Amino acid sequence: MYTVGNYLLDRLTELGIRDIFGVPGDYNLKFLDHVMTHKELNWIGNANELNAAYAADGYARTKGIAALVTTFGVGELSAANGTAGSYAEKVPVVQIVGTPTTAVQNSHKLVHHTLGDGRFDHFEKMQTEINGAIAHLTADNALAEIDRVLRIAVTERCPVYINLAIDVAEVVAEKPLKPLMEESKKVEEETTLVLNKIEKALQDSKNPVVLIGNEIASFHLESALADFVKKFNLPVTVLPFGKGGFDEEDAHFIGVYTGAPTAESIKERVEKADLILIIGAKLTDSATAGFSYDFEDRQVISVGSDEVSFYGEIMKPVAFAQFVNGLNSLNYLGYTGEIKQVERVADIEAKASNLTQNNFWKFVEKYLSNGDTLVAEQGTSFFGASLVPLKSKMKFIGQPLWGSIGYTFPAMLGSQIANPASRHLLFIGDGSLQLTIQELGMTFREKLTPIVFVINNDGYTVEREIHGPNELYNDIPMWDYQNLPYVFGGNKGNVATYKVTTEEELVAAMSQARQDTTRLQWIEVVMGKQDSPDLLVQLGKVFAKQNS
Amino acid sequence: MYTVGNYLLDRLTELGIRDIFGVPGDYNLKFLDHVMTHKELNWIGNANELNAAYAADGYARTKGIAALVTTFGVGELSAANGTAGSYAEKVPVVQIVGTPTTAVQNSHKLVHHTLGDGRFDHFEKMQTEINGAIAHLTADNALAEIDRVLRIAVTERCPVYINLAIDVAEVVAEKPLKPLMEESKKVEEETTLVLNKIEKALQDSKNPVVLIGNEIASFHLESALADFVKKFNLPVTVLPFGKGGFDEEDAHFIGVYTGAPTAESIKERVEKADLILIIGAKLTDSATAGFSYDFEDRQVISVGSDEVSFYGEIMKPVAFAQFVNGLNSLNYLGYTGEIKQVERVADIEAKASNLTQNNFWKFVEKYLSNGDTLVAEQGTSFFGASLVPLKSKMKFIGQPLWGSIGYTFPAMLGSQIANPASRHLLFIGDGSLQLTIQELGMTFREKLTPIVFVINNDGYTVEREIHGPNELYNDIPMWDYQNLPYVFGGNKGNVATYKVTTEEELVAAMSQARQDTTRLQWIEVVMGKQDSPDLLVQLGKVFAKQNS
Repeated sequence: MYTVGNYLLDRLTELGIRDIFGVPGDYNLKFLDHVMTHKELNWIGNANELNAAYAADGYARTKGIAALVTTFGVGELSAANGTAGSYAEKVPVVQIVGTPTTAVQNSHKLVHHTLGDGRFDHFEKMQTEINGAIAHLTADNALAEIDRVLRIAVTERCPVYINLAIDVAEVVAEKPLKPLMEESKKVEEETTLVLNKIEKALQDSKNPVVLIGNEIASFHLESALADFVKKFNLPVTVLPFGKGGFDEEDAHFIGVYTGAPTAESIKERVEKADLILIIGAKLTDSATAGFSYDFEDRQVISVGSDEVSFYGEIMKPVAFAQFVNGLNSLNYLGYTGEIKQVERVADIEAKASNLTQNNFWKFVEKYLSNGDTLVAEQGTSFFGASLVPLKSKMKFIGQPLWGSIGYTFPAMLGSQIANPASRHLLFIGDGSLQLTIQELGMTFREKLTPIVFVINNDGYTVEREIHGPNELYNDIPMWDYQNLPYVFGGNKGNVATYKVTTEEELVAAMSQARQDTTRLQWIEVVMGKQDSPDLLVQLGKVFAKQNS
Repeated sequence: MYTVGNYLLDRLTELGIRDIFGVPGDYNLKFLDHVMTHKELNWIGNANELNAAYAADGYARTKGIAALVTTFGVGELSAANGTAGSYAEKVPVVQIVGTPTTAVQNSHKLVHHTLGDGRFDHFEKMQTEINGAIAHLTADNALAEIDRVLRIAVTERCPVYINLAIDVAEVVAEKPLKPLMEESKKVEEETTLVLNKIEKALQDSKNPVVLIGNEIASFHLESALADFVKKFNLPVTVLPFGKGGFDEEDAHFIGVYTGAPTAESIKERVEKADLILIIGAKLTDSATAGFSYDFEDRQVISVGSDEVSFYGEIMKPVAFAQFVNGLNSLNYLGYTGEIKQVERVADIEAKASNLTQNNFWKFVEKYLSNGDTLVAEQGTSFFGASLVPLKSKMKFIGQPLWGSIGYTFPAMLGSQIANPASRHLLFIGDGSLQLTIQELGMTFREKLTPIVFVINNDGYTVEREIHGPNELYNDIPMWDYQNLPYVFGGNKGNVATYKVTTEEELVAAMSQARQDTTRLQWIEVVMGKQDSPDLLVQLGKVFAKQNS
């Protein structure tokens, strides 16, 4: 018998999903039976729902879309912070929430996982604030509603919520007759208008620059953007909140732009441009060192999925993917000026001296390899990693807008599952790791082999930079990071652990870890409690000011 | 300089709060400075916000009220499942959320921890669904709003939400002039009416029984209830969702009532009563084995804080505490029938044979001691523990309505901090422990010494009873429970670990743990993957039916 549950799962596989994350609960167990028997789907049980939401988010960033199964109330609310992060950063995660039967809901029964008031709408109402669309499935609307919200997830790159009552999942259904996504060749009028105006602006510009943000990666438009940039020989800079959207070994890449603390030559090239074409970017505080960009509206055309503005004037929104794909058809001869490619770190010799944040990131730059996925936790790691020039075909995952600490460990695992062929390198501090550590269990069960750098600097260093450098509230309990993996299912066969304090030790561990591809690589990096990358030191001051 | 932040903290201490739980974030750091310097307050940093919310909930259940500090967006949403649990089970937790400055909010800046749309109201809107009251503090309304929501938390026993912008916390304020809570001696008309009707009903009743629920403990009305029951010699039964509200060694206690699976003599005494006076109880599915109570409206008077009904007819609500306090002034001669006290387990000899769930709980019953706090995770533990008769002056903590797995470990720690003199015994399964394990770090930092029974039965046994006994989704990664404490800061000086498989080993470990009062006691209890207490076996069938 083919059911609504089967239909939903078939639509998910049609979108490329092969793994589903989540935690079982009695309101979703029957639906999970269908997941288990689906030939193309693999169930990844997580230790808790927030970790599952993070893992799904990481999977979606790499695979394009992800699915998450939780249970009514307790499960979906535990995941809420993860869902909100996906919404803020435009990551399509389909959350399927198993809810009590329609009969139980309609009779307002005092069942478990409710607030005890006979109401079943509280949590769905909450979800409207952090999802792009909500589907409350019934026997009558289920198939149309599934298709509607999945299309929104795909086209708008947002999480969507599917309320799936136990009985509705079991309703008999027809298999999908048509593909979910219909190709639309027709270019919308608004898009054409915007493209025409940009064509004119480029023709008139002497020294344009392209500044990209997170939506290039979110909408998976990396190659469309690259075609455009290469065809017209345009210099490209990237926000930290957008890193990974353009090949950083490409001759057109001039480096990362992050407001005032940007390296002087890049800063000047961007801020002196007569046209800054901003594509899919938000100039958020953490991406621009507290809004410290020094350019004016008259220089800027900005086109994103939510907002289009020409020289400060807001215009009608466009279909973002269509827009980016249209860019390389412009009638424009191209930029003929010189492009100064990003500078890379000179060869650096590893000494016996203790590691500092600034040197650490130089060794990381040397360590990167084509095709790696670099994941950087919001904290010293993100601010250190965001200025490191990447190698070709690398992916970069961070969460600088939402900035939920603990996010990257499960997110990295999700992304690694989405792309087993890419070696994943995670940089995470001890304070952040403590929030989501139990996902080590899943790491071993799924036989994942990323390289994890645990920056042990004894507490919340990022917070110390902003406020309270010596306050007790920025301390955390000291764990035994060396032995952690072994209590969660690790053994000599599936994990290698290292503890490094000096440059020499770091480089030796890095080299060994790169070759050891069949085990988790767990490198504890000991650094000073109040040592931060330069960018974070400056940003800490900016944030302290913003909070005053 | 005395500020709004100081005022809020002074009000919290006035209510008896001595410890504040939470996680730092840059929007709450300055407020935390005031917490650190407050002479009567102690900051308890948790590993993540959900754990902090659970710990605050446990603290509130024991101390009467608790406070939780989180940061805007990421922090408060991580805590949301805990807050909803407090709301469902009537536990007053004051959540103070540090938010960006008023200037940043009013200018709709794209700062971190937002959804990137310039709006700052999303999360507060979500919170209205799971809090009893919301205070959005401004320079003008702060003191009045603080007082208003704290009074609601105290009188209605619910979580409340305080949106505290960084700058508002720093606004100069007057110290409190009057006590927060004013004693009101005046008995409301509705209360008198209900008391009079109950007086008449008791006078007319031949064999009344009192059935109590969670609101006795939630409103801390244990002694008022005891006075009433003893004065009028009434038999008392308690729902699993209400256990601990009455002294189970008292001669009036007849045992736990939980619908169809109730021991026959108790079941008959309750269901054949001509008057069942239900006080502060909700007949939820998990408390009544899926609504399997066999009595009718014509037997029942039910008075709770939300709803009053006489023989099925809904009446005006009453002030619940005032009502319970008024019960022992009734004009009633008392019940003169015999009361059959709850039966206790006969002496049981520990054998060398493997432990079973049913025998395990007999040994637990023998093990309990006056003044202990028993905390039972929703799963095999709760259903096993809820039928165990307690000793005098014991407290019982579970979460059967909200039923969020992982809750009890941090909640137990919070309760232990609230009452260091009471030995805390936690019963928790491996599946549940995985959700919140990182709070072991706080356990050692705070030098807590509870006795933790980790029921290692290789997965989600409670879910197996409901659906999918052999399904992969009910499996969890196998951890090394013996060595877990040692990676989170444990050592031979602060923790003792045990692993028991047989009855003899259990009893030996229990005895040693009871005497070892200066270290955490960590007892891993190995039991069958599909072995459950009888009550859970029956309940599993009921829930499976409810879900079909």
